[in-house]
Amino acid sequence: MNGFAKTPEPPYYAVIFSSQRSEDVAGYGEMAEKMVALASKQTGFLGVESARDEGLGITVSYWDSLESIKKWKENSAHKVAQEKGKSTWYQNYAIRVCKVERQSFFEM
Amino acid sequence: MNGFAKTPEPPYYAVIFSSQRSEDVAGYGEMAEKMVALASKQTGFLGVESARDEGLGITVSYWDSLESIKKWKENSAHKVAQEKGKSTWYQNYAIRVCKVERQSFFEM
Repeated sequence: MNGFAKTPEPPYYAVIFSSQRSEDVAGYGEMAEKMVALASKQTGFLGVESARDEGLGITVSYWDSLESIKKWKENSAHKVAQEKGKSTWYQNYAIRVCKVERQSFFEM
Repeated sequence: MNGFAKTPEPPYYAVIFSSQRSEDVAGYGEMAEKMVALASKQTGFLGVESARDEGLGITVSYWDSLESIKKWKENSAHKVAQEKGKSTWYQNYAIRVCKVERQSFFEM
């Protein structure tokens, strides 16, 4: 879950998930890890980057197509996690689906 | 710098900046704050979301057009910060320019 996603040449797709958690985060870390592991096995998954501090968490997952994103959204285990997120873990969140048009990398 | 960006209806653009910092972070926090304040004043700026933990930092800025992103990239004070980032603060980073096609918000 740490480090950079080794994405291919654009175009491809990104899902930007920004969230503020509620006070009740029991079981959250375990579920988050499970979801990353599960997402990684989905067709069209290209990588994920994630960071969280006190204010906000941002997870960006990368996908080959809108179709792959749709399938992941509808994955049954993922749906359970989404419901638990809404009912318990998240105070609020934003999801943005984007087409990546350009990328550049810098390494020291 | 904390909280959600109140973005308008898509389409608009996002710049996903993922970074790993080096050991030498002197002056980084101050510059980061300055850059967010400066970006906020640019034409076409729609908002910014940022999170950082030990592993990775992710900052997503939102813009009305590719033209606004280009102008911000070429802003002279921002160019100074970019150079300092490359020479000192960042071990590596990735920049992805995306077109946001869809968004949804959830509030508890």
